[in-house]
Amino acid sequence: MSKKLEFWFEYGSTYSYLSAMRIETVAENYGVRVIWRPFLLGVLFKKDLGYTDSPFNRHAKKGQYMWRDMERLVENRDLPELAVPSPFPQNSLLPARISCALLDDERLPAFVRAVYRAEFQHGEQISDPFVMFDILSQNGFDAPSVMEKAGKKKSKEQLKELTSWADKKGLFGAPAFTTVDGELFWGDDRMEAAMKWVIDHA
Amino acid sequence: MSKKLEFWFEYGSTYSYLSAMRIETVAENYGVRVIWRPFLLGVLFKKDLGYTDSPFNRHAKKGQYMWRDMERLVENRDLPELAVPSPFPQNSLLPARISCALLDDERLPAFVRAVYRAEFQHGEQISDPFVMFDILSQNGFDAPSVMEKAGKKKSKEQLKELTSWADKKGLFGAPAFTTVDGELFWGDDRMEAAMKWVIDHA
Repeated sequence: MSKKLEFWFEYGSTYSYLSAMRIETVAENYGVRVIWRPFLLGVLFKKDLGYTDSPFNRHAKKGQYMWRDMERLVENRDLPELAVPSPFPQNSLLPARISCALLDDERLPAFVRAVYRAEFQHGEQISDPFVMFDILSQNGFDAPSVMEKAGKKKSKEQLKELTSWADKKGLFGAPAFTTVDGELFWGDDRMEAAMKWVIDHA
Repeated sequence: MSKKLEFWFEYGSTYSYLSAMRIETVAENYGVRVIWRPFLLGVLFKKDLGYTDSPFNRHAKKGQYMWRDMERLVENRDLPELAVPSPFPQNSLLPARISCALLDDERLPAFVRAVYRAEFQHGEQISDPFVMFDILSQNGFDAPSVMEKAGKKKSKEQLKELTSWADKKGLFGAPAFTTVDGELFWGDDRMEAAMKWVIDHA
């Protein structure tokens, strides 16, 4: 099927969480196939802007707005009350590497959502290997084997490659959506526009 | 009518242009009264972040994305092809002061839209007093009298006050929408959510 859309998500990102929770339903309505792409947004912030912290922390008013906006959005979407992880943003390296170990596994979306639920519904530490181990186990994965694969060079290289790819596609935030014909859409509120683009240009 | 929404716009802002062109239609559909509030976003960027240039210029990838996003949006909305003003952003002080001179004039929205059309459809210099004079004349205003009022202390003070008010309400970008019960919504794509909030909490 040529109707496909790449979904770029960063585990530390609140709006990526919103997109991860709904993209499969939206994609099904549009008849679009979603390719899930983990990447490390922090690497791009550092490279492009020299930032070592989230813009939501660097710019207090923007951060304050984002948390209120998220509160309103989870309520509108019937998601559980938002847990604010501490620290924010969480270090996303480990779940991102695990996702690379699961790139060929059709259950990757279920893992991604489970991580986001742990982070933004229960305030868990997603950089904690024990938290990751439990999430894998509880979702039917062979946790020891996946964790081992995530620690191998191949998964690390895949994550670097995806992040570099994101960079080349012009990504500067998350979530983002990219099309085969080179369009970039940024933000959860552009998901429908991205799907529509794919349909109209298939 | 208690169902009202404050619409904060910055003349240099591309997405404020989009909102200005459609907010009256949207507001009519929702039955909400719009209060038009000019302010100077650059003053807040300087104060909050020390920035002296637009984030779209400081962050090349974000800027590149914004122009492409705008191209797509004007096409979707049947607006004329986008003119990229040079320099971008335009200095918005003069039209903002003129807007303050017109705060009590019910034709303010027509003036605002005329300025945005000159800027983003024709690439005109909105800091040029002659351009402003022509816009006023062509839209039925007494141009000499309005220009004189815009140069007076009262209009200058009103603009400072509105910008300071925007700051206190937590604004960090434009367009933005604020409600009487203290909610802030940021971005053209939050316009409907802001209207809905007003209706649900009237």
